[in-house]
Order: sequence, then C-alpha cells, then structure tokens
Amino acid sequence: MSSPKLIFFQFKTRLQNPDYPTSPNVWRVRLALNYKNLPFTTVWVDGPEIAKTCIAECIPNLDFFADGTPHYTLPALIDATNPDAPVKLVDSKRIVDYLEDTYPEIDPQRALYPPGTKSFQALAYYFFREAVMIHLRPLSVAGAAALQTDRTCAAYLVRHRESYEKAQRMEESGREKGWETAKSALDLMESFIAENGDPQAPYFAGQNITFTDLSIAANLIYLKLSLGDQEFDKHIRAHNGGRWGRLLDAFAKYM
Amino acid sequence: MSSPKLIFFQFKTRLQNPDYPTSPNVWRVRLALNYKNLPFTTVWVDGPEIAKTCIAECIPNLDFFADGTPHYTLPALIDATNPDAPVKLVDSKRIVDYLEDTYPEIDPQRALYPPGTKSFQALAYYFFREAVMIHLRPLSVAGAAALQTDRTCAAYLVRHRESYEKAQRMEESGREKGWETAKSALDLMESFIAENGDPQAPYFAGQNITFTDLSIAANLIYLKLSLGDQEFDKHIRAHNGGRWGRLLDAFAKYM
Repeated sequence: MSSPKLIFFQFKTRLQNPDYPTSPNVWRVRLALNYKNLPFTTVWVDGPEIAKTCIAECIPNLDFFADGTPHYTLPALIDATNPDAPVKLVDSKRIVDYLEDTYPEIDPQRALYPPGTKSFQALAYYFFREAVMIHLRPLSVAGAAALQTDRTCAAYLVRHRESYEKAQRMEESGREKGWETAKSALDLMESFIAENGDPQAPYFAGQNITFTDLSIAANLIYLKLSLGDQEFDKHIRAHNGGRWGRLLDAFAKYM
Repeated sequence: MSSPKLIFFQFKTRLQNPDYPTSPNVWRVRLALNYKNLPFTTVWVDGPEIAKTCIAECIPNLDFFADGTPHYTLPALIDATNPDAPVKLVDSKRIVDYLEDTYPEIDPQRALYPPGTKSFQALAYYFFREAVMIHLRPLSVAGAAALQTDRTCAAYLVRHRESYEKAQRMEESGREKGWETAKSALDLMESFIAENGDPQAPYFAGQNITFTDLSIAANLIYLKLSLGDQEFDKHIRAHNGGRWGRLLDAFAKYM
C-alpha cells in the first residue's frame, strides 16, 4: 500500500500558535489521526468559506437545515491515497471509523474498537455527550466564541445562539448548577470505570485507548480551551481523584 | 473441583406452575445460572420471611433503610461447594459477577464479560434501567403486585408504594406517555446496537450473550409477566423490527 495521503479540513481559529481547533468534533478526528500515527496535511477553513470549500472539493453535506438548505460543516477528510478514487468524508465519528477500518492497528491492544465493543461504545459516546457535555454547553460557548476568527465569530454565534443567549442570561448560580450536574454525571462515569476493578487504569475500558477515550479527551480539550485553564482546573482536572486531568495529560502527545 | 452446590433464594409468587419469580433482579441471577449450566436448588421465600431467612442463613443485608434498619432482600445465593467456607451473597449483579469469576466459561465466546467490556456494560445496565425501565415501573408494579402471594402482597405494595400510587392516579394518556418514552429509549438502544454493522445479530454486542443481555432479558420477562402478554406484545415484542421479542425467545431456554 502506498503511504496514505490524507487532507484534513479543520476550522480556522485565533489559536495560531499552536494551531489548535476549538471544536470537539474536529479534535476527535485530530486525536485519532495522531494516535494512529497517520500523516496528514491540514486545510484551515474560515467560517464563511466552509460551504464553498466543501462544494469545490465535492465533500458531501452533513445533513440539511430545517429550511432544506444543505448543511456543510467540518471536520471533513479527503483520503487521496488512491488518486483515481479519493474518499471524501464528513462527520467525525464516520471519519474515525473509516480510518480505523482502512488503516487498522496491527497491535490488537491499539484497536479503537476491541471486538464486541462497538454498540457499547456508541452508548458511552451518547451518554457522555448527553449527560455531561450538554450541561456545560452554555458555559463553554461564550469562551469558544472568543477563540473564533473575526470572520467566523458571527456565524459561530448564529449556530450556537441558543446556548450563547442562555449563557448571557445565566447568573453565577446557573454556572454552579451546570457544573454540579455535569460533575454528578462524571461521578457516574467514574462508577462505571470502577467496574474494571483497576481504578488507577487510565482509560475508560482499562489500560487501552478506545474510541470512547478519544471522544472524552476531545471534549476535555475543548472545555480547557474554551473555559480557560483556571475554570477547567478548578472543576474538572482534580475531580474523581484526578482521572480527567490524567486522561488529558495522556492525550497531550496526540494533540 | 467438586460439583458446585448452589442454593438460590427466590421470592415466592403465585406463579406455581411454572415456578416463576417476578423480580427482574431474581430473573437476572436465574438466567445466569441456567445460561452457565450451573445446577442449583431453590429456596422459595415469602415476603414476611425474607429478613428472618437471611438472618438465619447469615446472608448479609443489601443496605440500610433511611431509619437505619438493615434491608434484607432477594435474590441471595449461598455457594456451599466448600462446606468449610460457604460464600453468602446478595445483590443480583454481585451474584452474577461472583458466578462468572468462580465458574468461568471455557469458551471465550460464552464469557458474560468479554475483555475490556466491564465498564461499558456497567453503563449499558445503568442506561437500560434509567432510560427504559423507570418509565414503565408505574405500569408494571400493579400487575406485579397481583402476582405476589397474599402474604407478600402487602409488603410489596409498601416497598413500591410510590409507583403503585402513581399507577392508580394514571389516566390512559399517562400509560401511553410512559410507553412512548420507554419506546424512544428502546429506539436509542437499537441505534447503538446498529453500530455492530450486523442488525440481525441477536444480542446487544452482536452474536454472543453478555451480562447486558441477561439484564435486558430479565427485565423483558418481568414486563411480560407483570403487564400480561397482550400489552407486552402490543408495545414491545414487535418494536425495533422484533428485536425484543427475538431476545426474549432466545432466553426462553434459560428461564
């Protein structure tokens, strides 16, 4: 097989040094590419250019808006390894699954989906998003908005208007409540992890990284960037005996 | 190793022929024992005798009531294989985990916990209980109460008073709403299962039975017994392309 030729479309942000995206979905793909040691080139796309770029590259839309117009978004990936039949993908989970299927790990301990875990991992991914992240969205959206480029920011605020307006209306007690609810859900996650019988094991399923860890780490990175180190460290880093800080540190080399 | 000598304490019910319990927790252990082909003798315990029986057998209490008195409940298991050191257990999950650890399957495909799935399965078990079953409890409690022995029924209604009173107040529209919410959660479960890429595979993780399937099947049996065949078949059997009816049928030989 020839060396993979992967082109990865990430949202441009203000974070030029280092070049970091701020979307958890983009992070999920980026962590997967780096964890799997797959070389890639990045195309940084500013908000107003997303649809134009996708159309020009024949990258499909993710879905449709309520009014029927196609919804183009990132991350997107082109695998041009076979120049006669380039693969063009959107949706972070679909992209990671494609990479795992197309460039499988030789060492079974590095598989993102150990045998018989796909349905369980789909549930874990859903649960983390709906039980933890949903309560932090209004908190993180305002911070994430400030990290967008000038050209992207307006579109970002339109896309996340509901969370942003909620954040604007939110009293300090509302922030605390969001944190308390999210941290209760993290406690639940910790209770599931404890079933491994090895509470110091760094990852959700124990000693090996799975898709679930990529997803959680991507969200933690997003929270750290958008909320800032101080609020992140105060609420998450040390929670559950430092589990989430350790997870973030373990993924630092894949950022 | 000598042949296991297992004594299984189940709630006595009106269902004498066949001898069926009506608690999903008791069913979970019963399905595990039969799936693992472990011989056992049953002690059927009527409600008012539970605490007395547990104390006499030195079976520990599960937890404590709010007023500090110990809460004795079933299922319970005594493993008297080693007569000098009998093992006495309560809590259906702890019992199943003990059986799996103590009498592991030789065929890895029959393991209730394939490697790296313990934390994922703890999440799946929690999710099924909290997203599906919780919405059906008021519907099923009244039916389950009618299946208890005369001596058990009063204690059963005290234990499940909140759900029972909710059921008494519930209009037909309330029942429909409970079903709709539970069925939406089943749709979610189905979407996770679909990630296997093999939608006809009978079990949550694909072709092999795991602890998660025991838990779901135990709850389906409980629903079928307490709600009756007609309501069960109308709402669950055919839902999600017949998945839940097929699961129940697959477990019939372990009942």
